[in-house]
Amino acid sequence: MGRRKGLLRMINRSQRFARRAVKVEHAQSMIMQHVQQMDSEHVSIDSCLHRRISEPLFSKECMPHFRRSGLDGYAVLSEEASFATPQNPTRLKVVDEVPAGSISSKQVVPGTAIRVMTGSAIPEGSNAVVMFEQTEEIQEDGQVFIHVKHKVAYGQNIAGVGDEITTGQLLMGVGTRIGPGQIALLASLGFDKVPVVRRPVVGILTTGNELIAAGEPLLPGKIRNSNAYMLAAQVEQYGGLAVKYGTVPDDMDEVARTIRTAIEECDILLVSGGVSVGDYDVMADFFSTMKGNGMELLFNKIAMRPGSPTSAAIINKKLLFGLSGNPGACFVGFELLVRPVLLTMQGTVDPFNQASKAVMADDFGKGCPHDRYIRGHMTYSNQQMSVSVLNKNSSSMLVSIQHANCLILIPSGSKGIAAGQQAEVIPLPYEITLYGK
Amino acid sequence: MGRRKGLLRMINRSQRFARRAVKVEHAQSMIMQHVQQMDSEHVSIDSCLHRRISEPLFSKECMPHFRRSGLDGYAVLSEEASFATPQNPTRLKVVDEVPAGSISSKQVVPGTAIRVMTGSAIPEGSNAVVMFEQTEEIQEDGQVFIHVKHKVAYGQNIAGVGDEITTGQLLMGVGTRIGPGQIALLASLGFDKVPVVRRPVVGILTTGNELIAAGEPLLPGKIRNSNAYMLAAQVEQYGGLAVKYGTVPDDMDEVARTIRTAIEECDILLVSGGVSVGDYDVMADFFSTMKGNGMELLFNKIAMRPGSPTSAAIINKKLLFGLSGNPGACFVGFELLVRPVLLTMQGTVDPFNQASKAVMADDFGKGCPHDRYIRGHMTYSNQQMSVSVLNKNSSSMLVSIQHANCLILIPSGSKGIAAGQQAEVIPLPYEITLYGK
Repeated sequence: MGRRKGLLRMINRSQRFARRAVKVEHAQSMIMQHVQQMDSEHVSIDSCLHRRISEPLFSKECMPHFRRSGLDGYAVLSEEASFATPQNPTRLKVVDEVPAGSISSKQVVPGTAIRVMTGSAIPEGSNAVVMFEQTEEIQEDGQVFIHVKHKVAYGQNIAGVGDEITTGQLLMGVGTRIGPGQIALLASLGFDKVPVVRRPVVGILTTGNELIAAGEPLLPGKIRNSNAYMLAAQVEQYGGLAVKYGTVPDDMDEVARTIRTAIEECDILLVSGGVSVGDYDVMADFFSTMKGNGMELLFNKIAMRPGSPTSAAIINKKLLFGLSGNPGACFVGFELLVRPVLLTMQGTVDPFNQASKAVMADDFGKGCPHDRYIRGHMTYSNQQMSVSVLNKNSSSMLVSIQHANCLILIPSGSKGIAAGQQAEVIPLPYEITLYGK
Repeated sequence: MGRRKGLLRMINRSQRFARRAVKVEHAQSMIMQHVQQMDSEHVSIDSCLHRRISEPLFSKECMPHFRRSGLDGYAVLSEEASFATPQNPTRLKVVDEVPAGSISSKQVVPGTAIRVMTGSAIPEGSNAVVMFEQTEEIQEDGQVFIHVKHKVAYGQNIAGVGDEITTGQLLMGVGTRIGPGQIALLASLGFDKVPVVRRPVVGILTTGNELIAAGEPLLPGKIRNSNAYMLAAQVEQYGGLAVKYGTVPDDMDEVARTIRTAIEECDILLVSGGVSVGDYDVMADFFSTMKGNGMELLFNKIAMRPGSPTSAAIINKKLLFGLSGNPGACFVGFELLVRPVLLTMQGTVDPFNQASKAVMADDFGKGCPHDRYIRGHMTYSNQQMSVSVLNKNSSSMLVSIQHANCLILIPSGSKGIAAGQQAEVIPLPYEITLYGK
């Protein structure tokens, strides 16, 4: 149970209340000083989707590497048919055909044409391709001729060597997220093994006597753990590998033991719960006790709502985050603080969600002495980006997280933002609803 | 080699040229008549990220299922401290404490308070929680008292039963894509097994004598296969399971054999290449030959660029797509035609990419008798969505696909769209760049 403190033992909470709140940007910059790109590994092109490139990739080849026909037709000498019309067609003898993937041993010389397919190598001598539909075929004495019925321009329907990609060209930079387009490019240029950044291993530990697992029936006073599952999904969404360390009761020694194990095994560690000022907030105790003892505390309070007691420290050069146990606050803490860490570890140059502007669809009338991050839903319509405040937005609530595609920033000291005013929004990686009307 | 046709054997291509081009919307609606939602399966909540919900989920519980404290403080009777001030505090005897996860056996009766933590069950009798910071603690004769120094309102800092979720409430509908927020909600309501739609198994077959694999060195006239890798990534991105059937040379019998095997093993089948009018376009031959023989041809030409020879048919009630071998056209064909199929199979109600409007950053001066789909990059800045035309946009090119986050529709019959004019854009599932300035 971890009831370490009897009712009669007065607790000196002055140290906890006296925590110095740092600004969000300051918290972010302190964290970022301790983040480095992970090492590289090579994976098969079949399993690199959504991974991130670990080194600048340059093309060792050009593309096309041969003159290529853009369509099905005849390779000709353009100057022979530059004035061809249906009435005055150019007559050419067909001397060979080149299926895609083959090479003709013949040349196009005056008076001749060679049949080519989309993607065929253009035969020597030819400088244009005329499409089938602009020719007429004639068979005479066992020989095929064509009549070219439309004028032909130099170079038409031919992709030249290196037209698409030149040798030595930068293909993609460090941190590029690999999607279908990147995969097509890598495959076509021979990268069957792709250098990607190793996925950061992220430990996840939840604390709290009140927590039971998702599969357990409810008990009086208990709630099911949601943060461990949510954090694992957030980690995975940003390219990390989540490792769960279960739920530890509110007992500092047990929490400390688990943290020491986890921090050895992981690249960074997230602990949810126990960071506030309550009697059983074991993470707050842990940070106080460990300060200096092999741990460097970066901050234990941030001037923001929700999630002000969010904390971060360094143990063994590794980042340890103490996130709020309240799901709404835990979610926001992750997006603002852990996301940029995971992305930087994977080589992203600009890991912070770029803030943008949107017009408020609703009033948000509550002021706050600290910056406030409200879950919102952005919609683009009528050439305007607008944003709604989601209901059930309090830090203890999680039902609105599923509908959030941005955080709305309500600046400190303001009285909120009225409908119709512009707000700063931080997009989350969920699709923005776009309407064409 | 599959050189089935000698140079001297004239080919009757009239049937191919005479194909009837259907409009994109018509092609889409013909396809969609053959699509049904996949069956359902239950997966662990630990492996449901990005899957889609297969049945409407209703809550069997309410949340919170007990009156819950929103912070660390004292459960009191509000009417006893409704006028409390620092000068005239309300003095209460602390009779118990309730860590989160526990239940007090005591009640709050007049003159008493019970210490509670964030997430604690509110003791019987109490109707408000006052935060620690608004109280002063006093120890007298082995008994703890508090002075409440600020006025207390009825219900303050208490989340009531069902405040967040009521029993029977719809949690998420069919086709909902599961993200971290959905996972948090499912976990907290006891869904450790989640009903999701089975992932569609999508066969991928490439045809063409010119194709070699990504790991092979280049040979004269050959190119590396990119479409098989690209299509597999697109399939995976939209929730399908890609199964590759390799590359088959331009030999209709071999292609037909492989299709017959693949269509048995998969839910839908994508074939890339061989759909055009060339001599070696085996898929065109396949569709002609099989028409009626256990196959229903839906269309073999679409009034669009790129990808006009894109074809679709039904074999054994399963969809078979003949996509262009040109990577740019293959990509667009997938996004316009296959994507909605995959999403509908997974329960999405509105599977078509919602078109939107954006201001052209560049001229696109080429007209076309058919609707044209240009790869573009959308950016939101200064409260304006603008879209650039990507370079290297021809259907045979793939280098620009990696930068595309939308398709720009250039309507049929137009002379293109000038910079500054509005264009219709179809967003792709890649992040839109947002700038705050």
